[in-house]
Amino acid sequence: MDLNADSGESFGSWTMGNDAAMFRIVSSANVACGFHAGDPVTMLDSCRAAFELDVRVGAHVGYRDLHGFGRRSMDMSFDELFGDVLYQLGALDGVAHAVGASVDYVKPHGALYNRIVHDVDQAEAVVAAIHAYDPGLPVLGLPGSALLRLAEESGHPVFREAFVDRGYLPDGTLVPRSQEGAVVHDAAAVVERAVRFAVRGEVLAVDGTVVQVNPDSLCIHGDTPGAVELAAAVRAGLEEAGVEIASFA
Amino acid sequence: MDLNADSGESFGSWTMGNDAAMFRIVSSANVACGFHAGDPVTMLDSCRAAFELDVRVGAHVGYRDLHGFGRRSMDMSFDELFGDVLYQLGALDGVAHAVGASVDYVKPHGALYNRIVHDVDQAEAVVAAIHAYDPGLPVLGLPGSALLRLAEESGHPVFREAFVDRGYLPDGTLVPRSQEGAVVHDAAAVVERAVRFAVRGEVLAVDGTVVQVNPDSLCIHGDTPGAVELAAAVRAGLEEAGVEIASFA
Amino acid sequence: MDLNADSGESFGSWTMGNDAAMFRIVSSANVACGFHAGDPVTMLDSCRAAFELDVRVGAHVGYRDLHGFGRRSMDMSFDELFGDVLYQLGALDGVAHAVGASVDYVKPHGALYNRIVHDVDQAEAVVAAIHAYDPGLPVLGLPGSALLRLAEESGHPVFREAFVDRGYLPDGTLVPRSQEGAVVHDAAAVVERAVRFAVRGEVLAVDGTVVQVNPDSLCIHGDTPGAVELAAAVRAGLEEAGVEIASFA
Amino acid sequence: MDLNADSGESFGSWTMGNDAAMFRIVSSANVACGFHAGDPVTMLDSCRAAFELDVRVGAHVGYRDLHGFGRRSMDMSFDELFGDVLYQLGALDGVAHAVGASVDYVKPHGALYNRIVHDVDQAEAVVAAIHAYDPGLPVLGLPGSALLRLAEESGHPVFREAFVDRGYLPDGTLVPRSQEGAVVHDAAAVVERAVRFAVRGEVLAVDGTVVQVNPDSLCIHGDTPGAVELAAAVRAGLEEAGVEIASFA
Repeated sequence: MDLNADSGESFGSWTMGNDAAMFRIVSSANVACGFHAGDPVTMLDSCRAAFELDVRVGAHVGYRDLHGFGRRSMDMSFDELFGDVLYQLGALDGVAHAVGASVDYVKPHGALYNRIVHDVDQAEAVVAAIHAYDPGLPVLGLPGSALLRLAEESGHPVFREAFVDRGYLPDGTLVPRSQEGAVVHDAAAVVERAVRFAVRGEVLAVDGTVVQVNPDSLCIHGDTPGAVELAAAVRAGLEEAGVEIASFA
Repeated sequence: MDLNADSGESFGSWTMGNDAAMFRIVSSANVACGFHAGDPVTMLDSCRAAFELDVRVGAHVGYRDLHGFGRRSMDMSFDELFGDVLYQLGALDGVAHAVGASVDYVKPHGALYNRIVHDVDQAEAVVAAIHAYDPGLPVLGLPGSALLRLAEESGHPVFREAFVDRGYLPDGTLVPRSQEGAVVHDAAAVVERAVRFAVRGEVLAVDGTVVQVNPDSLCIHGDTPGAVELAAAVRAGLEEAGVEIASFA
Repeated sequence: MDLNADSGESFGSWTMGNDAAMFRIVSSANVACGFHAGDPVTMLDSCRAAFELDVRVGAHVGYRDLHGFGRRSMDMSFDELFGDVLYQLGALDGVAHAVGASVDYVKPHGALYNRIVHDVDQAEAVVAAIHAYDPGLPVLGLPGSALLRLAEESGHPVFREAFVDRGYLPDGTLVPRSQEGAVVHDAAAVVERAVRFAVRGEVLAVDGTVVQVNPDSLCIHGDTPGAVELAAAVRAGLEEAGVEIASFA
Repeated sequence: MDLNADSGESFGSWTMGNDAAMFRIVSSANVACGFHAGDPVTMLDSCRAAFELDVRVGAHVGYRDLHGFGRRSMDMSFDELFGDVLYQLGALDGVAHAVGASVDYVKPHGALYNRIVHDVDQAEAVVAAIHAYDPGLPVLGLPGSALLRLAEESGHPVFREAFVDRGYLPDGTLVPRSQEGAVVHDAAAVVERAVRFAVRGEVLAVDGTVVQVNPDSLCIHGDTPGAVELAAAVRAGLEEAGVEIASFA
């Protein structure tokens, strides 16, 4: 089972998250590419650390919106989104290669990630850019998303992620953040869910239904108070359960 | 003899220059990489046109300063400049590859170009980034600049450019823009100078001295009124004089 | 009747439109405030020209999106949009006062303008920001928009604009740009429509229906080829018909 | 004696400093205006807190350089710098007025602050902008700087600041950060220096010389570990010594 976390989200003098700690826990790092977060020095640091700790580098491509951290849905034309994604992939690749690493996979960020679950036009632009960049590049995303469907149709290896601290509805989608049960706060429960995802491929939905998700990767967060400790607990719990942590890429 | 011109300098809804016309005249296009000008869609258009018209693509790397068009000298640490140049190289390369082209050489832009004629610290950061990106990448710059010296010491093929419409001092440096004679406005004189650069490697300085420059490339401008006509006249003049226009790369 | 046009849309080294010419035609200038276009020097130039030519200055507030020229709809929280609008109003006001002018009214730009025709949440944020800035500031917008309705409810003088070169549907809304009849290209027809708007307050819809619009201002464009000539023709046509051109503010 | 500290330096999702704590210690807050740090929501929060806690609001104007946090010296034309400073003043004023506060003084930030100690051209542009904005606005800066000299010549009330944790040379200038003695790390020594500045107007230079500085304001920092505690200790030390903390504005 792969463990992925967002990383490289500092910008200039502003820091975010604790990459040094998280890179000892995860097997895949989604590195921001400078559009919603990250800058070249931060990207270099992230890629260098990933390379040294044998963590795979994912291009965490996002909307061009530093002010909103890529969390605000935006209309974009096919050409604009195609170009912006391609540019970010190339930029991260240039940085990664300089330190011996490479772009091993792509996972869209924030509002773009959410939008291309359903928005086929934007999903097509993202997939076209990934494809133009490297027709064999793995794509990590939400099961059932337009992104993964289109990427698979284009011949890309696709990988499905689950969220260890998010509530699920009986249909396998996430409980919206505006509703109760959206986030699982109890650490023991989070670890238990991670193990269940990894061992049985399933999750207990908010109504008690067992939902089959079969994730290839579990997403954990590193930028909230106590997040690193929780992430470490998830990893420890998985290893105790005999789950090997290794990237899909 | 190579003819180079800046290109891809539009940004979003703002256009600059006439790439379509210039790409039929030059052999090398210095494509802006999004930091001082250019955006991914513009870069795609420039790279596509360059590829179709057999024009070499140069990475026109600049300071992160859209508002000042990269024309304002900036202090930057080694790491910051190293990262910013590397990022731009990777971004342009990603875009170029998507349309069958590639980054064939590097030429710094504007205030960065001028600064690393003398500023060894910034020149070192730029050369280190180019080297980290591709240790064999050709570098185009001003004869006698710290940039070319350091790039050559690092093993990069270096190429020297001359300016067909700029006045020269007897020591081979350019007449500062604040002084008389800085710019040659007469079209016939510009063409004559281009031919003399190409055929004899020399230029007539403002005081009448003959200066040996031996350029590998002549820089022409495309973004001023009448610039395209002048550029076409330069090319025609060179061809009439039996000079073959071809990239150094 | 007021004539308004967008202005101050240059950015750094990139120019757009022909403010010098348009300011001799219009009575109200919608000046970009640096978020979707414009920069302080451009804003100073626009405000100075407006002051000298007795043109009213409108704050053309937009999304924070230079790359997309404010033409891409964006999700924004109330606080973010409130802050961004307030900031732009203050910035333009600071610039305007330095040259003897002032912010005389507000007209949102581009995607924000279109979005707050219907999006009540964003309209509320925009109106709250305008109100916090100056509870008596006039607001210019589309008749029937949430913007004008909420601004009026907040006690702001509101003014309705019509578009001299856009097709109208029988219900008084604009023909979408994707449909035939969206734009009126014939200069004589544009002038005729302007006069009809001004004299009778009405427009002939695409199906021949007469629609009562009662505009307080007519919007004309200055940034397309031939736009200045068309704008001048509109003004001449209005004056010939005895319509006095004067700002509502 | 006034105590001033930088504030409002968060940007979007990135936080910096601890304004809530510092605003209970200082009498003047230098609020970032969005060019080197800060965004409208952050500015609103800072101005609201300043208003509630009776802290004066200073416009902390800086270079347009979020990536470098305004810490990189930049060449700028008079017009560009005039415009950028004016724009920031207006923007902060718009925001401040919305919450009952106002711009009470100006203090340039970072590389701009340092540059206009000596760079008369840039100092002239900054002072011209402040003057165009409000000819009576107080200016806070380094004693002996071109900024304060020009501001005073233009009729602005000027106020001199000293740094409680920086080493001084016998001529009253700061020990460069590259040299030993640049920063005073010992908390007790910092408090003692603050009191000496406030009570006698003097400081002990690195060579033991007593230097007369006569500051109107003491600058303390809030964005490093332990900074808030140190700031509180400085305030407590001053109050113990009978010094009243109050803004000059």
